[in-house]
Amino acid sequence: MNSRQIVLAARPKGLPKESDFRLIERDVPEPSEGQFLVRTHYLSVDPYMRGRISDRKSYAEPVAVGEVMVGGTVGTVLESRHDRFKMGDIVVGSWGWQEFAVVNGDGIYPFNTSIAPMSTALGVLGMPGMTAYFGLLEIGQPKSGETVLVSGAGGAVGSLVGQIAKIRGCRVVGSAGSQRKVDHLVNDLGFDAVFNYKEVADYGPKLQEVCPNGIDVYFDNVGGPLTDAVFTQINLHARIVVCGQIALYNAELPPEGPRLLWHLIVKRARAEGFLVFDFAKKYADAQRQIAQWLRDGKVRYRETLLDGLENAPRAFIGLFHGDNLGKQLVRLVTD
Amino acid sequence: MNSRQIVLAARPKGLPKESDFRLIERDVPEPSEGQFLVRTHYLSVDPYMRGRISDRKSYAEPVAVGEVMVGGTVGTVLESRHDRFKMGDIVVGSWGWQEFAVVNGDGIYPFNTSIAPMSTALGVLGMPGMTAYFGLLEIGQPKSGETVLVSGAGGAVGSLVGQIAKIRGCRVVGSAGSQRKVDHLVNDLGFDAVFNYKEVADYGPKLQEVCPNGIDVYFDNVGGPLTDAVFTQINLHARIVVCGQIALYNAELPPEGPRLLWHLIVKRARAEGFLVFDFAKKYADAQRQIAQWLRDGKVRYRETLLDGLENAPRAFIGLFHGDNLGKQLVRLVTD
Repeated sequence: MNSRQIVLAARPKGLPKESDFRLIERDVPEPSEGQFLVRTHYLSVDPYMRGRISDRKSYAEPVAVGEVMVGGTVGTVLESRHDRFKMGDIVVGSWGWQEFAVVNGDGIYPFNTSIAPMSTALGVLGMPGMTAYFGLLEIGQPKSGETVLVSGAGGAVGSLVGQIAKIRGCRVVGSAGSQRKVDHLVNDLGFDAVFNYKEVADYGPKLQEVCPNGIDVYFDNVGGPLTDAVFTQINLHARIVVCGQIALYNAELPPEGPRLLWHLIVKRARAEGFLVFDFAKKYADAQRQIAQWLRDGKVRYRETLLDGLENAPRAFIGLFHGDNLGKQLVRLVTD
Repeated sequence: MNSRQIVLAARPKGLPKESDFRLIERDVPEPSEGQFLVRTHYLSVDPYMRGRISDRKSYAEPVAVGEVMVGGTVGTVLESRHDRFKMGDIVVGSWGWQEFAVVNGDGIYPFNTSIAPMSTALGVLGMPGMTAYFGLLEIGQPKSGETVLVSGAGGAVGSLVGQIAKIRGCRVVGSAGSQRKVDHLVNDLGFDAVFNYKEVADYGPKLQEVCPNGIDVYFDNVGGPLTDAVFTQINLHARIVVCGQIALYNAELPPEGPRLLWHLIVKRARAEGFLVFDFAKKYADAQRQIAQWLRDGKVRYRETLLDGLENAPRAFIGLFHGDNLGKQLVRLVTD
């Protein structure tokens, strides 16, 4: 049988272009003993993937030109010669941007759709959900009454960070890139204040306005000038959770900005980075907790869908324009 | 009686000049009930004082123009109408750059010279000693076998940081600003490697050479381009102890440099600032431990002395040229 795939056609310079990717068609082999065939229902596009297609030294080897593009996926088992997986199972993994794949089960887990729809395996109950949960609670350690600021608040991670911080009794402030996101975060998700960073010329006064008691926890998905301004407004013993730096990912030269470490001394504060994989042993606990919050209506999520594998590059590039409200997904199978 | 004092004559721009300070003579009143008269034997000059004479927002109010310059002091009680202090006591405090002062005892403590000479109350057993001890052990948390890099290794704080890290079984690497410091740190204090940062054009390759296993703990007294390079060489779960940023203290405009937070994500690392005062409740324990190390010959210290109150500005300014080996002191009384 044949499968359409998207491969990396060229190593992007700056903002990725659609021509950096190429759609190809390839024969999918029969599964051998210990393998199974999966059909992709949804694939995930996430900002971290920009790092995976650059030459910059990082935590994983970059995708080579000509290889299938990486990314989280969820789908169904069509045919199995594997002990643990059987036909019809719904499974989540990272087999990348392709319609079908033959896999051996490494890094692939069953997903229980009685808790939530299949697509949430890539969002609120998947990697972005785990990132928000562990980044905020383990690295940020918010306490009731503290002010938590989250940048990129309209995305899959940021919108959950804010809701968990609200559950923990914090004042929650967000930055986002459109009025639609601002409205959603305030009206639907209960953020205390959200500003559209694209409409703010000077972040300092704006932060003072929306965080009148200073900033205790900053969950940073964005980096760049907003983060610079936050460093000047942190409270004593503030925690800066360095989750992402999407504002910098497409920079061709190492970006420069003000030197910020001095503020950490004056405020006895810390900035700490993390990768969600480090918390893998605790994913199940976090998923149970988030599922409970979903059932109780304490956590909500949004998805932005694009249909068709051929639109995956566009969905990915759109992340850097802030096109997505909540989790950006590409849907390959319409149920 | 009369006392000579040094007051701040002007708020320095950039590197302080001697003309930013002025020597004056003032009458010292008789101590009232609850007060006592101290004579200054040594006064301390430390990099942090640059922040105390600038307008930049910091953890304490700046010294006003015309006020006596701040700073740690040690001396003897000449006359007392205070319950806890009597004539002849040796006391340590922060009564600033003056030969005599009438004080009420706030922030002043007796110092036991049977442990170590009076001058160490401002160095290895004083604020710099506490800074090294708590910064390294509580913030840096070095483990045996790890590589600890300390910038400004030839100074009062850095030289002790390196020795404590050696006691903890670490590989210890330093940067310093003269061949004399390099030799002292390697030959007298047992550092594993030290480089003269003034003779290094590109810090990256030099760090790879002296820290072949990467950097687990970076104790940063300096900031600037060396710190930039360190961020690119840190190990997984590295701890960056932000103690001082002497390379930036005289900058007129907010200094810029490469944006570094991304490295904290990739390496799941943290950068944390601290002020030694936060550990005040544990000073006595630390002093006992350092005194024991001194007796056992496991810790050594050096002092650089300038004689005469009038030379205090020169001693202070010299810190920014790296003139001092170990603790820089101004001696007012030659025993």
